Amino acid sequence: MTASSAHAHDSFVRRHVGTDPDAQRHMLEVLGHDSLDDMLRAAVPGTILLDAESGDGARSAASAVPEGITEPAALAELRGLAARNTVRRSLIGLGYHGTHTPAVIQRNVLENPAWYTAYTPYQPEISQGRLEALLTFQTMICDLTGMDLSNASTLDEATSAAEAMLMARRAVKRNGNVFLVDADALPATKAVLQGRADGLGIELREVDFRTEGVPEGEYFGALVQYPGASGRVWDPRDVLAEVRSTKAVAVVAADLLALTMLASPGSLGADITVGSSQRFGVPLGFGGPHAGFVAVRKGLERQLPGRLVGVSKDADGNPAYRLSLQTREQHIRREKATSAITTAQVLLAVMAAMYAVYHGPDGLTRIGRTVADRTAALADLLRRSGFSLVSESFFDTLEVRATGTAADLAASLAEAGYLVHTVGDDIVHLSLDETVTAEDLTAIAAAFAPHAPTPGEELAEASSGHGWDALVREDPFLQHPVFTSFHSETAMMRYLRRLADRDFALDRGMIPLGSCTMKLNAATEMAGVTWAEFNALHPFAPREDVEGYLEMIDQLETWLADLTGYDTVSLQPNAGSQGEFAGLLAIRAYHASRGESGRDICLVPSSAHGTNAASAVIAGLRVVVVASDARGNIDLDDLKQKIKDHGDELAAIMITYPSTHGVYEEEVRTVCQLVHDAGGQVYVDGANLNALLQVARPGEFGGDVSHLNLHKTFCIPHGGGGPGVGPVAAKAHLAPFLPGHPAMQRDEHPVAGQGARSHGGPPVSQAPYGSPSILPITWTYIRLMGPDGLRHATASAVLAANYMARRLSESYEILYTGENGLVAHECIVDLRPFTARTGITVDDVAKRLIDYGFHAPTMSFPVAGTLMVEPTESEDLAEIDRFVDAMLMIAKEAEEVVAGTWPAEDNPLVNSPHTAASIATGEWTHPYSREVAVYPGSWTALEDDSVHDSAQMRIQSKYWPPVRRVEQAYGDRNLVPTWPRD
Amino acid sequence: MTASSAHAHDSFVRRHVGTDPDAQRHMLEVLGHDSLDDMLRAAVPGTILLDAESGDGARSAASAVPEGITEPAALAELRGLAARNTVRRSLIGLGYHGTHTPAVIQRNVLENPAWYTAYTPYQPEISQGRLEALLTFQTMICDLTGMDLSNASTLDEATSAAEAMLMARRAVKRNGNVFLVDADALPATKAVLQGRADGLGIELREVDFRTEGVPEGEYFGALVQYPGASGRVWDPRDVLAEVRSTKAVAVVAADLLALTMLASPGSLGADITVGSSQRFGVPLGFGGPHAGFVAVRKGLERQLPGRLVGVSKDADGNPAYRLSLQTREQHIRREKATSAITTAQVLLAVMAAMYAVYHGPDGLTRIGRTVADRTAALADLLRRSGFSLVSESFFDTLEVRATGTAADLAASLAEAGYLVHTVGDDIVHLSLDETVTAEDLTAIAAAFAPHAPTPGEELAEASSGHGWDALVREDPFLQHPVFTSFHSETAMMRYLRRLADRDFALDRGMIPLGSCTMKLNAATEMAGVTWAEFNALHPFAPREDVEGYLEMIDQLETWLADLTGYDTVSLQPNAGSQGEFAGLLAIRAYHASRGESGRDICLVPSSAHGTNAASAVIAGLRVVVVASDARGNIDLDDLKQKIKDHGDELAAIMITYPSTHGVYEEEVRTVCQLVHDAGGQVYVDGANLNALLQVARPGEFGGDVSHLNLHKTFCIPHGGGGPGVGPVAAKAHLAPFLPGHPAMQRDEHPVAGQGARSHGGPPVSQAPYGSPSILPITWTYIRLMGPDGLRHATASAVLAANYMARRLSESYEILYTGENGLVAHECIVDLRPFTARTGITVDDVAKRLIDYGFHAPTMSFPVAGTLMVEPTESEDLAEIDRFVDAMLMIAKEAEEVVAGTWPAEDNPLVNSPHTAASIATGEWTHPYSREVAVYPGSWTALEDDSVHDSAQMRIQSKYWPPVRRVEQAYGDRNLVPTWPRD
Repeated sequence: MTASSAHAHDSFVRRHVGTDPDAQRHMLEVLGHDSLDDMLRAAVPGTILLDAESGDGARSAASAVPEGITEPAALAELRGLAARNTVRRSLIGLGYHGTHTPAVIQRNVLENPAWYTAYTPYQPEISQGRLEALLTFQTMICDLTGMDLSNASTLDEATSAAEAMLMARRAVKRNGNVFLVDADALPATKAVLQGRADGLGIELREVDFRTEGVPEGEYFGALVQYPGASGRVWDPRDVLAEVRSTKAVAVVAADLLALTMLASPGSLGADITVGSSQRFGVPLGFGGPHAGFVAVRKGLERQLPGRLVGVSKDADGNPAYRLSLQTREQHIRREKATSAITTAQVLLAVMAAMYAVYHGPDGLTRIGRTVADRTAALADLLRRSGFSLVSESFFDTLEVRATGTAADLAASLAEAGYLVHTVGDDIVHLSLDETVTAEDLTAIAAAFAPHAPTPGEELAEASSGHGWDALVREDPFLQHPVFTSFHSETAMMRYLRRLADRDFALDRGMIPLGSCTMKLNAATEMAGVTWAEFNALHPFAPREDVEGYLEMIDQLETWLADLTGYDTVSLQPNAGSQGEFAGLLAIRAYHASRGESGRDICLVPSSAHGTNAASAVIAGLRVVVVASDARGNIDLDDLKQKIKDHGDELAAIMITYPSTHGVYEEEVRTVCQLVHDAGGQVYVDGANLNALLQVARPGEFGGDVSHLNLHKTFCIPHGGGGPGVGPVAAKAHLAPFLPGHPAMQRDEHPVAGQGARSHGGPPVSQAPYGSPSILPITWTYIRLMGPDGLRHATASAVLAANYMARRLSESYEILYTGENGLVAHECIVDLRPFTARTGITVDDVAKRLIDYGFHAPTMSFPVAGTLMVEPTESEDLAEIDRFVDAMLMIAKEAEEVVAGTWPAEDNPLVNSPHTAASIATGEWTHPYSREVAVYPGSWTALEDDSVHDSAQMRIQSKYWPPVRRVEQAYGDRNLVPTWPRD
Repeated sequence: MTASSAHAHDSFVRRHVGTDPDAQRHMLEVLGHDSLDDMLRAAVPGTILLDAESGDGARSAASAVPEGITEPAALAELRGLAARNTVRRSLIGLGYHGTHTPAVIQRNVLENPAWYTAYTPYQPEISQGRLEALLTFQTMICDLTGMDLSNASTLDEATSAAEAMLMARRAVKRNGNVFLVDADALPATKAVLQGRADGLGIELREVDFRTEGVPEGEYFGALVQYPGASGRVWDPRDVLAEVRSTKAVAVVAADLLALTMLASPGSLGADITVGSSQRFGVPLGFGGPHAGFVAVRKGLERQLPGRLVGVSKDADGNPAYRLSLQTREQHIRREKATSAITTAQVLLAVMAAMYAVYHGPDGLTRIGRTVADRTAALADLLRRSGFSLVSESFFDTLEVRATGTAADLAASLAEAGYLVHTVGDDIVHLSLDETVTAEDLTAIAAAFAPHAPTPGEELAEASSGHGWDALVREDPFLQHPVFTSFHSETAMMRYLRRLADRDFALDRGMIPLGSCTMKLNAATEMAGVTWAEFNALHPFAPREDVEGYLEMIDQLETWLADLTGYDTVSLQPNAGSQGEFAGLLAIRAYHASRGESGRDICLVPSSAHGTNAASAVIAGLRVVVVASDARGNIDLDDLKQKIKDHGDELAAIMITYPSTHGVYEEEVRTVCQLVHDAGGQVYVDGANLNALLQVARPGEFGGDVSHLNLHKTFCIPHGGGGPGVGPVAAKAHLAPFLPGHPAMQRDEHPVAGQGARSHGGPPVSQAPYGSPSILPITWTYIRLMGPDGLRHATASAVLAANYMARRLSESYEILYTGENGLVAHECIVDLRPFTARTGITVDDVAKRLIDYGFHAPTMSFPVAGTLMVEPTESEDLAEIDRFVDAMLMIAKEAEEVVAGTWPAEDNPLVNSPHTAASIATGEWTHPYSREVAVYPGSWTALEDDSVHDSAQMRIQSKYWPPVRRVEQAYGDRNLVPTWPRD
């Protein structure tokens, strides 16, 4: 089947791809091509193009991916995989706890496209709803931890700890190269820290702070787990004071629910607190996604990784939220970056924040107290049955001595439906959570001691105490009204709707963000995410409970490897940045395994995505920039020179394909060959894979390793700024160095042609499989599309971008095209000449697009003064044309400024976006009408016989931005990172 | 536990009831009561009040309903019930067919509160989204059936047929009293027709039209099933012509999917076409809810039952949708009514319409053709295996001859996972649908003939024809762009969002509709609705497959009987009107069983709900009105006189309690006693049960029978105007006369104190249990609340209404109160003096409330010139105060008109509601500002420390009506009931 041929009437491809055959015929005609294949042959270098009709000699697009099936059939197959998982109640703990997701939050956030299809809130005017939710998240974290600022989420607790270590490294200039880690820290945290420390040459030293105190010698920071992974609650005040007295940074990894009962890390002396908000209503999900956090004392804010929301004001002086200190993100474009700060888990942070809003301070306190009391009650029961505890001071976790019988007890508990963790042969470790009822306590106690008398009614109340009287929390928290106003479901539902209504997500219109691939996140793809068989499993559940998951992961690894031309895939990285880091670590380890540890130079083209350099630095590589030529391609001469300059030090090159300029570079095979010839490895950034699937394979044209973004090419929604999944795909020689994990249920990964192999690198995520509960989205997408459908999607995306580029070129310059005048799946609109002539900036165009009802394209990336537009295959022709029409009308508006009709300082472009309030209140003093301000597109009526047959229909569907243009500098000068907290 | 005592922190009661203890303390203080119980004792007559503390002698509020449990616990219990159902693929047909609900529709309509919490679109300005969807439904029905007008849905196909029979009866003045029904009509349709015919003394005569033609003799109408229930397709042209030639009405009951292939009933000569839209994407649901329809030729529109959407224009001359010919609804307030036209299935009609929008004409045709071709292919396979067919002309249904082995074959098919229907011992009846795949055909054929050779690939294509060449459809359908513009999921998702955004539903704010009880429809309650175990079962599935359902139904019947003080309940009526009809039929049958068939007078108080009289007439009773006294109570003297007047003819009285005036009448026991003493029965309309649960029991204070509205008191959402469930609850003596059904899986219904008894009345719905797939909502609500929670909810609803009445009385008169100056759960604001003084009408206030962001209260019911306000227990104090503030500000605005600040014909009240377009476009010529027009409430800032701490926040959350005031008369004069169809 060729890319352009028809798909069955019940084929999902017809639903996913926005342009139907008629529309595509029209678009191809505009471009002067006969067919999609014809267009692809013109756009994609023949040296890499897969041939749809796999003839002799031609590279075949044939795939190991099975043919696409219908939506009901795919769901049935997914149900079959789900049925092979067994959901037992987890008491395993270790950073992951059972929780009740309030149904009102599940339905109105997690299952609501208004929330999950939104993009990262870089355009604050159309993101006020989720920015408010994130401000609430930050306030919640600050209140509970006793810190001054929190970021708006990180990937998980372990990587948050790693970020804290790197912050400490940046903040403390002397104090040696040692970072101290609590012996009672979470095992996964230790493992992730070790991987990061190795990358940067930091020495990680494990210390039992409670018994040993702080050791002598230099160190730049220390991390204390509070309560300990063992469940022990002890007072770290002295340890933290000692650390701080040496000018080192004191980091605490804390449990948020415990902090409703226990004195906050801030009050105990922490500089930084990290942790996870998972148990605040976010399902276990076999490990993720969840929202971690990093919170700091004032003074450390400019070192803070991740995004930070703050309050600023808009052009009318009204309060407005925005991402603060965004200039920090510029760091990621520099070679000195040591933190990948673009990754976040917004959707999960929103859920956790709304859990706190719904329960409020009293509700959270009651949940915390109930967990603590039930734990104490269980301790009583176990003591009565003759068991003793390793620690008599605990919040939710008990370690029970069971000399030689730990495994038997665990088996007996599993039989009763409860999963626990064992420490060696002699200790049973179990954690309670809000889902544990009084009946559960009885059942658990009975599994420990089948013949003990059944406890009576008094059980849930009785307890001989928790053992931490000196640490009882006294500070209030969550005192702002946002935490006390929405406790009825009706009030909560309406609050969530009001927030969602302020935002512009894919459910309203196109989000043509170049390099971000905002395409359809189909409802069928989303279905599995909320099935208990996928979202109620603990990441360390035993292998026999997760066979369905492992099979799905196996299939996905195989399919993704096949589609990219690689041999093996790790799904562990829970963000693109983590995938990059893992891939670069693999390259370093590979060189080291061959006795070439000296290879540490990473070539990065000047056009590269900012995270490339950051990841290289974090992986311990030195970045060297390679120039681009006038067409935006890698300058081959400069490349040769740099290769020559660095000789045996060359570790790798990182390229993006198609390039960040949105073009299929002709010479990509040559580039790869040159680097290979010099002993280097080739890293192909998968950001633009949406232009390649079933059209070309990076692993086939020269890549050794790539990360993919399942949240771009493979339909995981952006969630307003996360979650994402960033698998790393590699050739077989790198397989042993891809991320492993001490708790991985099955370390056997398919390697093309070689059966299964182990992935032996250090973990880059807290959970063995990263964020597996969203993998069903990608699995379903691939299963629905099949190889032909994926090729059709790629071709349709390229068609849409080229059609758009062609139409936009009426009024704008398109910055880069390939040899045949075609772009790949996105195009860069060069506004610099336009701005020079009209005075209208990229910002003005982006904000004016809001008045027209569109999300702005990517601004000033990869080239300042430009807009990068990516329509994806999912937009239909009507929406594409509407967007182009809006852009052309904006160009005409700019001419009115040039013509002097409107002054440069008072016109609809510089004043955009316009709120409803701005036309309703006060005097109207502008030289253009209110109608021009807010309904600029209303005269562009579509065909008369359309369902939207009048300007009135478009007026009725208008998106109203809630604020006017947000002042960026003001918010940074006056940083307000939380709701008022007094 | 008393009504005011605290509920556990994880209790759902705290989520369902909007006012927390602090708020309630404040509200009680305003009213001068110490506690909720104190207030109840003042409001509710001591003669009926249940005592919370069940002391000696006092009527106890103790209940057989189990104590409330948490949301996770209730869901776990519901999962347990679900697990006892077995989902096998149904080939049973008979009006119910498997279908794929497009995921984008399930998620964005069925699971989206913006759709399901909306009210009936009586206020067109805030209902344009669902009105557009309903116009699309009507167009779809008209196009496929070839009729001129369709209503916007009816309850199901069988009751639609009954409505058509009644229309024919009304339309044809002579032609005797006989209605002819096709021998090959659906069995359930025949049974429902029989029940209705009996009520009105119509003689129903069964005719095999195909073989016998039309019989001699007089008849006023005839119904032909097309295709026949047996699956046979034959040409009814001659029969229909013959019927029409006698001036009788020709009714066709048609299958919508078949009409994509077959000539339309309109083209064949039907006057009326009825049917169901279930197989257009609406799950089987064990029988419902689904949307039926009645479509007619021009000329019959004023007889059309149900609602009819049409296009009108608004005050600015822009097109706007509205309910047309609403004056027909006035009929239901008269004693001559013969049709209950307020019932509809809007949510399901929207789903079916959107299914057509998503598939379009080509997609529907392909689905229809595939079903037809697969049926023909299966026929081939069966013939090859030696089976013969009863009819060689079929669309989707085959009747296979299997002399003596039908049961065995059915068992073998069930074993293979397919349910079929058998006709006697010798015929297997099976229907295919869009979910049947080629693999299914093979499996079905194999179950028929295990030893036949497996068919090859050619199977799905091959067929020796369908046997209806002369009936092949040639007319195009669904040619309007609405059916061809939204075929990608992205486009569809956005269209659904745009439509939803135009509407005001509970997810935006309070809908204080007196008598409609718009309270929380909690997400947890809604969960079960979309589980396959509840929504994928055929209504005639064998008993062993539906044990979980039967158990849930058993529990619900028991709980509802207990809560209302009755002995037995039937859940079959799928709307309140059906419940009323069933209850009155039971009364008639009871009298008849005692040899008192002469009792046919039904007393109805002048304040009664309009449907009361309509139901009485449909049940064959004569209506006599009883006067009200000055307080709105039943006039006891008049009652005594009417009882005396009618002596042995007295059948019943229908009362509403609390009365439709919103007051607990003191003398209700006396009223009941007087009627009982005269040999009459007491029908208590359950519309206002939200003021009674666990406070008083109708069955205990004198009722013999009641219908309940699960969509009011018991949390089934209104769905924008349906679905509803209207169970009928009765004392034991009426049990034998409650609705039965020939296909009921278990005709054993709990009767308090008597074990289980049969319900032997005629069916009032097509399916044995009406609309069972939404019963999990009510089950979950009761299970969550428990008896104490329900009492607390009742008390909180009464508190909210009284608090509101007290505050509103600052500026308005409250029409009726009880002896202690208290209302029940709603209050009537008498605007007549206000209107007389200010010229501002009920309409002006209602529409101005839209500008303030509220849905209007009930207008001019039960008293013209009034507003009836019901806040329910779910609204929180802030929302209640906001509403009252808005009402008080409107009163002040009216004073400005009186004062002459604003002219009577140009002020913000008469011009309301104001759209965004109205302030943005054209000149502003009004004597008030744009700000006053659209942000009238923005200066009513809440407390400064609130999360909504500024007028700006409210401005950001503004609901913008999409149109201005809709002209009602214009739309009736210029009836446009579909999209343009040429």
